[in-house]
Amino acid sequence: MTTKLMLEHKYYKAFAALAGCNLALAAAAAALCAYIAPAAAGSGIPEVKAYLNGVDAHSILAPSTLFVKIFGSILCVSAGFVVGKEGPMVHTGACIASLIGQGGSRKYHLTWRWLKYFKNDRDRRDLITCGAAAGVASAFRAPVGGVLFALEEAASWWRSALLWRTFFTTAVVAIVLRAFIQLCSTGTCGLFGEGGLIMYDVSAAKVAYSVPDILAVILLGVIGGIFGSLYNYLVDKVLRTYSIINEKGPAVKILLVVTISLLTSICSYGLPWFATCIPCPIDTTESCPNTDLSGNYKSFQCPPNHYNDLASLFLNTNDDAIRNLLSTSTTKEFHISSLFIFFIAIYCLGVITYGIAIPSGLFIPVILAGAGYGRLIGRLFDPITKLDVGLFALLGAASFLGGTMRMTVSLCVILLELTNDLLLLPLVMLVLLISKTVGDMFNHGVYDQIVKLKGLPYMEAHAEPYMKHLVARDVVSGPLITFSGVEKVGNILHALKTTGHNGFPVIDEPPFADAPELCGLVLRSHLLVLLKGKIFSWDRVLSGDEVVRRISKFDFAKAGSGKGVKLEDLDIKDEEMDMYVDLHPITNTSPYTVVETMSLAKAAVLFRQLGLRHMCVVPKSQGRPPIVGILTRHDFLPEHILGLYPHIRLRK
Amino acid sequence: MTTKLMLEHKYYKAFAALAGCNLALAAAAAALCAYIAPAAAGSGIPEVKAYLNGVDAHSILAPSTLFVKIFGSILCVSAGFVVGKEGPMVHTGACIASLIGQGGSRKYHLTWRWLKYFKNDRDRRDLITCGAAAGVASAFRAPVGGVLFALEEAASWWRSALLWRTFFTTAVVAIVLRAFIQLCSTGTCGLFGEGGLIMYDVSAAKVAYSVPDILAVILLGVIGGIFGSLYNYLVDKVLRTYSIINEKGPAVKILLVVTISLLTSICSYGLPWFATCIPCPIDTTESCPNTDLSGNYKSFQCPPNHYNDLASLFLNTNDDAIRNLLSTSTTKEFHISSLFIFFIAIYCLGVITYGIAIPSGLFIPVILAGAGYGRLIGRLFDPITKLDVGLFALLGAASFLGGTMRMTVSLCVILLELTNDLLLLPLVMLVLLISKTVGDMFNHGVYDQIVKLKGLPYMEAHAEPYMKHLVARDVVSGPLITFSGVEKVGNILHALKTTGHNGFPVIDEPPFADAPELCGLVLRSHLLVLLKGKIFSWDRVLSGDEVVRRISKFDFAKAGSGKGVKLEDLDIKDEEMDMYVDLHPITNTSPYTVVETMSLAKAAVLFRQLGLRHMCVVPKSQGRPPIVGILTRHDFLPEHILGLYPHIRLRK
Repeated sequence: MTTKLMLEHKYYKAFAALAGCNLALAAAAAALCAYIAPAAAGSGIPEVKAYLNGVDAHSILAPSTLFVKIFGSILCVSAGFVVGKEGPMVHTGACIASLIGQGGSRKYHLTWRWLKYFKNDRDRRDLITCGAAAGVASAFRAPVGGVLFALEEAASWWRSALLWRTFFTTAVVAIVLRAFIQLCSTGTCGLFGEGGLIMYDVSAAKVAYSVPDILAVILLGVIGGIFGSLYNYLVDKVLRTYSIINEKGPAVKILLVVTISLLTSICSYGLPWFATCIPCPIDTTESCPNTDLSGNYKSFQCPPNHYNDLASLFLNTNDDAIRNLLSTSTTKEFHISSLFIFFIAIYCLGVITYGIAIPSGLFIPVILAGAGYGRLIGRLFDPITKLDVGLFALLGAASFLGGTMRMTVSLCVILLELTNDLLLLPLVMLVLLISKTVGDMFNHGVYDQIVKLKGLPYMEAHAEPYMKHLVARDVVSGPLITFSGVEKVGNILHALKTTGHNGFPVIDEPPFADAPELCGLVLRSHLLVLLKGKIFSWDRVLSGDEVVRRISKFDFAKAGSGKGVKLEDLDIKDEEMDMYVDLHPITNTSPYTVVETMSLAKAAVLFRQLGLRHMCVVPKSQGRPPIVGILTRHDFLPEHILGLYPHIRLRK
Repeated sequence: MTTKLMLEHKYYKAFAALAGCNLALAAAAAALCAYIAPAAAGSGIPEVKAYLNGVDAHSILAPSTLFVKIFGSILCVSAGFVVGKEGPMVHTGACIASLIGQGGSRKYHLTWRWLKYFKNDRDRRDLITCGAAAGVASAFRAPVGGVLFALEEAASWWRSALLWRTFFTTAVVAIVLRAFIQLCSTGTCGLFGEGGLIMYDVSAAKVAYSVPDILAVILLGVIGGIFGSLYNYLVDKVLRTYSIINEKGPAVKILLVVTISLLTSICSYGLPWFATCIPCPIDTTESCPNTDLSGNYKSFQCPPNHYNDLASLFLNTNDDAIRNLLSTSTTKEFHISSLFIFFIAIYCLGVITYGIAIPSGLFIPVILAGAGYGRLIGRLFDPITKLDVGLFALLGAASFLGGTMRMTVSLCVILLELTNDLLLLPLVMLVLLISKTVGDMFNHGVYDQIVKLKGLPYMEAHAEPYMKHLVARDVVSGPLITFSGVEKVGNILHALKTTGHNGFPVIDEPPFADAPELCGLVLRSHLLVLLKGKIFSWDRVLSGDEVVRRISKFDFAKAGSGKGVKLEDLDIKDEEMDMYVDLHPITNTSPYTVVETMSLAKAAVLFRQLGLRHMCVVPKSQGRPPIVGILTRHDFLPEHILGLYPHIRLRK
């Protein structure tokens, strides 16, 4: 409609139509996000990453999040924001996997027998990793890139079985995608299927490079790395500001989204006026000027046979803007000044858009800004290099991605699968190496930053240096609550009510053992199931057989997030409070333990590598109670340790 | 020369020349291998894999192995054997990395300060992983494939730092390769640089497929998986036979090599006689018939303007044979009967060649046989499919690789980087999935089989099911030898002499502790360094400070394999035998421990995931000696456990 009004020279009306549509879509997305599922805001990759690290927050993968993520993402991309759909697709994939992993709904008798395999942490985590891989695979049509993304960025634990499973998933994605592209080859599916399996094909360009080209590319990588880390820095600052604003309530959130939407519309519509009209090239296969929804060579306000280069970038789908920037053998298509304006505008819009209450991916803004930057550098270096500007745009995108996300192999393969240019691989690898190295000098990757900012207790793979000066005992925080092997119901209920602990050590005392000894660990969830079963007795006796007979194994399986027995579900009568319950059948008798004098660094490695949730600390010398304390994820976090030992920060 | 004699119709003399050259080269390679470094025989990938799993055998990465691997591999490939250079190049890369990791030679004062970073297990392992990645990257000119191969097949422990390091390594390889290919573009480097960065480019072929094509491809995958696992089975049988023959001495080894060489020459020269001459195609860009060393359309005995298709495959370099098989838009180039003969011959030659005393890779034979098989299937399915036979050959190679090696992502990327056909990716993934699944039904991957056959104590990533029925105490073996915190020199020397243990628990007794308690673990190598330092005293006192003053930290660093202090180097006088030495400074006071009642499966996971060499088993109840035993790699091996508990095998 805007285009039609433009053709009729009704410029203000055209802007009103554009901005109005964008505003409406943006407001709808923001309302969904603010009222239904606040967890759906942002990229979603940091949350998935934290979940796969073992952070079991309910809302991250809830069905409501899934719903808002899908529809919010569609609305936002349509609203013309500088946001990507890649992050949200990864999150969507993970949410769907989580739903499947919860095994349908027992309430509606929709359970399948085979889904019980996912009733444990590890397999559910694997399934969600596969979901994340499928997200990348479908977003970029890059099946191998999806596998690598899942392994390099998302997963915290890697096993060869996981590799094989993600590979299987993305192979299925690739085949389904291929079938749909075939089905849609007649052009009946809107913008889907454009570009085929290779979204931005640049393989037509001749790749030949020599020393000056390589020097130019190295410079491009260094500057790209600096811009990338600056992007991370700015996103961090903006996110901190927005989190203060967003706390004021849903209405303020929506207002912020509307403001940014308006700003985006002004940029998209206003900036092209600064560009001069360029005569159409004669030898192009595309129509020029173009008044379609997408494509290249936008007419905008230009006379016939002329096009507005900035409009071709701004008033376009993000995908087509990238395609235009990467287009090869069209050296002079974009003015240097236009590229400069575009780069600055997209860079700033990208920074201020991330963090508002809409599902927003980071890949597309970074690729857009990077491609603009790369093409600009390519134009500037035109006199000394023979490399095509389209290839420069690709390398620029690589440098920005490397500088912000700090991935290597997965980005390399994703870019390869996006552009189908294998001959450029050595240069892409070089640029990624340089920009990641440069970026790492300044700050962490953008996803790590966001994880930290959100306060998610993410555990790094390596132990911090100051942990070497501490032992496991030093960070145990009390008070320790233990149960006897056969414990009073009242005591258990009291402990469950007064603490939030998820694991309790069980100690066998006489007559069940000669001296007090550590029997094992019980989980809160298992205790709740046991108490619900009400297999109590008035005497302190073992009743293990009865438990096994009366409660099926399946009841103890890890329930879906948000499901499972809750404390309020229990209905224990007062007279039952003094009865005994035998904890042996539900005790994990082989918990991982460390001696209290174990170096904290080594304990942290053990905790992280094995993906534990609880670790028992046992005393070194004899004649003391058999357990010193329990370490959980929070005890290993720098905030906790540095809170206990503030002077250590200096020794670092 | 053979070609020249052929052209003069001196057929017997031509054969003699061919077989003679091959024999001489083969005998030279076998002699190198049999007399200098028997460890250089075979692919080398299983050995590297075992090393990275923690098997610290000296000869695997010794300089002599490196020498023989390089020159032996050159000789063997020249001798016309059906062997690859990929496995040997991986081994070569690992050997070079190991040499660098040992930090030059202290003997010749060739040490660098920064090399001290490799004086520990983990960093040295990382370096060798990078070496293996570089090997694949240079062999296939596939940098990303190299990274993935190192991670999927070679490495046992994966960290994101490792990903980044291997990526760095292969990026350097890619850039160096690219530079050499540029330098050699004038054709002055022999066969190097042929094909450029993409060795077998098939991207010219139009990729369009529909349902019948996919069905054909699925069938190809299933049969390929069966053939692949059959290959593994046969290689295993042949290896067992050869190992009996090879035990009889170097001369017999050489005789075996010579026999196989003669057989290979007979096949290469004899089988083309069964092929009929085919008229040259008119529209080819290659010269036909061809009398060069490599290339397509070999003339052999054919009249002018005719070529012998079998000779184009047999009397050619392995690389060119693959290139010819993968060549697209040349549907009728090879007769079905020729393809059949070629496939059978190469399959059998590949099986009987692996295991003789020469460096021999498995990739090329498998790719050759697979490509032949795929092209054959393509010709047979010609009536129902529109897919090019060259692409069928590629898919056939993929199915054989998947069926024998059971890798997924890395094979996929390597094939992609070899052939530059991104559009075929979904089909390649499908074929790999199917052939791996089919293969896994019958046996293990070929490298795993060889590792097992060689008796290398490889630890699987997962615990075996029967381990769940055992606890850590059950598999502790042998008399336990412990030291006091301050121990008599004579006792230590006696223990070092009479046992082969590499780690000894140290127990603190009064007056150093109230009751006997586990102080930690000392390593044999550290004990040797300490004893060499001779910081003894006549009294049982702590002398830690003096040790730190007198022996530098660097002396305790892990020495290069085969270096380090040996028991024979010690010169302890009789009167020193009764003196005391303080073990506290060299005791690792934070060894990983498990309680004796810990499930063996969980103990195995701990051992494997953290890459331990020793694990202390401590008692559960109090009032007993503070250590029950030490578990090492061998205690977790199925042979050991099933030896102790033969009945468990049945319960499995």
